[in-house]
Amino acid sequence: MAKMHVGFVGTGIMGAPMARNLLKAGFTVTAQNRTRAKAEALEADGATVVDTPAAAAEGADAVITIVSDSPDVEAVYLGDDGICSTIGRGKLTIDMSTISPMVAREVAKAVEAKGASFLDAPVSGGEGGAIGGTLSIMIGGPTEAVERARPLFEAMGKNIVHIGENGAGQLTKLCNQTAAVLTILGAAEAVALAEKSGLDVGKMLEAIGAGAAGSWMISNLAPLMAKKDYRPGFMIDLQQKDLRLVMETARAFKLSMPGASLVHQLYASNQAAGEGAEGTQSMIKTLRRLGAI
Amino acid sequence: MAKMHVGFVGTGIMGAPMARNLLKAGFTVTAQNRTRAKAEALEADGATVVDTPAAAAEGADAVITIVSDSPDVEAVYLGDDGICSTIGRGKLTIDMSTISPMVAREVAKAVEAKGASFLDAPVSGGEGGAIGGTLSIMIGGPTEAVERARPLFEAMGKNIVHIGENGAGQLTKLCNQTAAVLTILGAAEAVALAEKSGLDVGKMLEAIGAGAAGSWMISNLAPLMAKKDYRPGFMIDLQQKDLRLVMETARAFKLSMPGASLVHQLYASNQAAGEGAEGTQSMIKTLRRLGAI
Amino acid sequence: MAKMHVGFVGTGIMGAPMARNLLKAGFTVTAQNRTRAKAEALEADGATVVDTPAAAAEGADAVITIVSDSPDVEAVYLGDDGICSTIGRGKLTIDMSTISPMVAREVAKAVEAKGASFLDAPVSGGEGGAIGGTLSIMIGGPTEAVERARPLFEAMGKNIVHIGENGAGQLTKLCNQTAAVLTILGAAEAVALAEKSGLDVGKMLEAIGAGAAGSWMISNLAPLMAKKDYRPGFMIDLQQKDLRLVMETARAFKLSMPGASLVHQLYASNQAAGEGAEGTQSMIKTLRRLGAI
Amino acid sequence: MAKMHVGFVGTGIMGAPMARNLLKAGFTVTAQNRTRAKAEALEADGATVVDTPAAAAEGADAVITIVSDSPDVEAVYLGDDGICSTIGRGKLTIDMSTISPMVAREVAKAVEAKGASFLDAPVSGGEGGAIGGTLSIMIGGPTEAVERARPLFEAMGKNIVHIGENGAGQLTKLCNQTAAVLTILGAAEAVALAEKSGLDVGKMLEAIGAGAAGSWMISNLAPLMAKKDYRPGFMIDLQQKDLRLVMETARAFKLSMPGASLVHQLYASNQAAGEGAEGTQSMIKTLRRLGAI
Repeated sequence: MAKMHVGFVGTGIMGAPMARNLLKAGFTVTAQNRTRAKAEALEADGATVVDTPAAAAEGADAVITIVSDSPDVEAVYLGDDGICSTIGRGKLTIDMSTISPMVAREVAKAVEAKGASFLDAPVSGGEGGAIGGTLSIMIGGPTEAVERARPLFEAMGKNIVHIGENGAGQLTKLCNQTAAVLTILGAAEAVALAEKSGLDVGKMLEAIGAGAAGSWMISNLAPLMAKKDYRPGFMIDLQQKDLRLVMETARAFKLSMPGASLVHQLYASNQAAGEGAEGTQSMIKTLRRLGAI
Repeated sequence: MAKMHVGFVGTGIMGAPMARNLLKAGFTVTAQNRTRAKAEALEADGATVVDTPAAAAEGADAVITIVSDSPDVEAVYLGDDGICSTIGRGKLTIDMSTISPMVAREVAKAVEAKGASFLDAPVSGGEGGAIGGTLSIMIGGPTEAVERARPLFEAMGKNIVHIGENGAGQLTKLCNQTAAVLTILGAAEAVALAEKSGLDVGKMLEAIGAGAAGSWMISNLAPLMAKKDYRPGFMIDLQQKDLRLVMETARAFKLSMPGASLVHQLYASNQAAGEGAEGTQSMIKTLRRLGAI
Repeated sequence: MAKMHVGFVGTGIMGAPMARNLLKAGFTVTAQNRTRAKAEALEADGATVVDTPAAAAEGADAVITIVSDSPDVEAVYLGDDGICSTIGRGKLTIDMSTISPMVAREVAKAVEAKGASFLDAPVSGGEGGAIGGTLSIMIGGPTEAVERARPLFEAMGKNIVHIGENGAGQLTKLCNQTAAVLTILGAAEAVALAEKSGLDVGKMLEAIGAGAAGSWMISNLAPLMAKKDYRPGFMIDLQQKDLRLVMETARAFKLSMPGASLVHQLYASNQAAGEGAEGTQSMIKTLRRLGAI
Repeated sequence: MAKMHVGFVGTGIMGAPMARNLLKAGFTVTAQNRTRAKAEALEADGATVVDTPAAAAEGADAVITIVSDSPDVEAVYLGDDGICSTIGRGKLTIDMSTISPMVAREVAKAVEAKGASFLDAPVSGGEGGAIGGTLSIMIGGPTEAVERARPLFEAMGKNIVHIGENGAGQLTKLCNQTAAVLTILGAAEAVALAEKSGLDVGKMLEAIGAGAAGSWMISNLAPLMAKKDYRPGFMIDLQQKDLRLVMETARAFKLSMPGASLVHQLYASNQAAGEGAEGTQSMIKTLRRLGAI
């Protein structure tokens, strides 16, 4: 079976290595990025570069998009030179950005009105996962479309889960971020208590990491907190964008999320202090500010 | 080398299986419990039963205590028939209760004044870990005493970590509880968002559990939330006792812990609703109450 | 001096009595409302009714707008039939809606580009204040425009304060809502503690209302909580809209507002329970839900 | 009718001026204080000084106590030289400290076992109110005893309210503190938003103080926040003691108090920063720390 031809919109920190993995897997790729130079960096890997999302979608079997936020996705699909203006009947579109589930559903409807399919398929795993092809991919949309897209997903990720209808991928990503940030807060308060009371933080983490308090965050980010290594990982500014989506979605569904909301406010302190480009482990800095540590 | 003779004070849900593991490992055990019948249940396993902590300590190489809360530990060590009234010079005392680090340090001083050593060595791992001998043990106290106690710890637990001076074991346990409850809150808010928005909770958990949001809680308690299985595990009433200790300790050290404090208030709702004897996964019930789920 | 001719856009619960007060004070009024019937209800009071904001602004000395939210204000000023398409050079526009300070500033720029002036002048005091002409009015914009608008403000309100540049009126309104909702939360937690512990709530309020805990909320809303009278006053759904603006504004300025954020989450529980159209005193119901009162 | 003879235990910042007001009103006073010199300062006003609470109670018609915290009240009433050892049958005891309602009830029982009456009658109004004789007094205990005590209360306070049975005075005081601190938090977040967004704080407060956001705190403490005047008023360390009582009482009654709990954590940051002896308006400093203002 011939490999699909893929339009790829958004070749930033995440998108570029994902597109490279598609090229490595033998897919042909037509890339587009707002800053054209970023797309051109993929030419050496075999990509063709075009100027608009419409041009990337034209003639493609599938279009993959990964941009910053809900309005960007709306622009890329629904704008004047958007994907919906050229996408062919029966073709596939896959948005891998993290955006509002409500917006994902709107875009899905617009794509379906053109006779094509839409998947919302946000990822976790960060730049490392994008480069290594080990992203977790959470997918919402029609089963048939998921199956068609599977070879693409397998070129980019490892833990590929089809959750449900359109929007379900984004909702799952927001569940992921909710669980993640409160686990970070727990790690950070534990580290703060240890620091304030004079414990050896490394030994404390060794003692608690193996049991019921254990988590990826305790194993991976808490040691960075102790070592004062604040390099991202995942930047606080991006986490705050995602938490804004969590809060907006909770509002839309009329759900109280006191924990996620508290974290959103605490990270605002990092942003106020100019730490927005640091990794999410810098939560510890806000606790140190509060605790005069 | 002859096995130590151990006095064991507090043969409740945790203490009884721990004492049994000592007996299985070949230690002789003199057991004492406020409700004598609970200690007598160990006679079949080879324990001798006495009436007071003082009697349990008399002639023992080491005394292990595991009771409910700080005042109980004070009574058991410092009371009229307490351990300090009979403990021999050069002997070992080990408190495995979860109590105030400040109280642990006071008791340590009283024990040292008798020429004996004190370790604070709280555990995590629950009844299952106590039965299976797989408890995590977090230890504060003098290195020499820890080394002497090691054969006892190895009969009861797996992840045995000496953290620092007296109090360090209790502080580490409080760090553990802090990290644990916020990880639970994160899991519960993720499940609540999934339920409220109509996601398949099982698939959501499958998708997020493998990555940066992963934790023991996501793997073990979140599925119970979804299945509405509220059996403990670890009871909310006990978790609230531990969170009270966290809050008191934070107060003593002048530390803001907004996250742990929020969880403490949310679990109060479970207690108000008569759910104090359920497992900590019942946090989801408070979120459902708030969200009309 | 001849009375100004006023275009009035948005004749809802607040706008209608405000327009009536202008008519009573001798101003001529051309009214417009999306649902035309609501504007027509003012004809008996002497208003002329038109179909679009543009028509209301045409030939007016001043246009007053009071609509629901930021996008409505954008539509009313910047849309196809919007005020900016007809407003005359040197004329006055006054937005009395509660909206985003950032949007207020954008609209101000668009109005100024037409050679007219813009004031953001949100109000507090509710329907009662609108009817009685006793609204508090918080004003942002050029001093000269405020002075020209003063006779209009005096026909509608009592406590008329010019705070600063454009946006300052909206920012002040958000400060007002922040202070208000936390004062409500304080009143509600006090009432909940009284109820849960069996105090006579009325006597408790009598005892605390005169001192440092005293507030408009303790005097006016706390007694309604105790009597289970949940009629608005000010509806929770509207309060939540305003708190959303508070949160968005805090985000824009990088400010942590943990208190306002907590209230926003607690009111979400009222909305989930179908209490969004009740008065803000229904905060007590969320506390009762949490406390099994 | 002859004036009562009053034993007065605890002549600190609050107690000394209260005792002076009793002396001015014609009561004879026998004063006792742990640091005897503080009681002796009242000799010039006509007080007799004794060494123990027992001595102050001996022969007194009524004993008034105002000390720091629950254990102090227990010591003063139930200790070796305590009031219960000498108080006469049919006599009156009045504790005006702020302590645990549960402890107040225990002490009441001990006093009643001696055939005397006990009132819990905590105050608000601070040092100024104590000097001026304008304290608010919140009373729990038997009606008959309240009536007998009324001339004493009238010499010390203005807003004198009998709430209910023993404990009701303390519970009301905790309701007072709960309402007060959340009103402060609301004021502080409003001031922080104003500062961060460049508003004129004074004008903002002028605009919001007259309406539904108005409170004693907005009128009295918010202007101090703006002026950076942090002199107490009421010290954060004392407020934190009272909030600890609120949290303990909520725990005893199984009540969620997320707002009071949040304030308790935020003030911990002030204490960590060495601001515990400043007035409660220093809450703004914690918000400034979080917001990099």
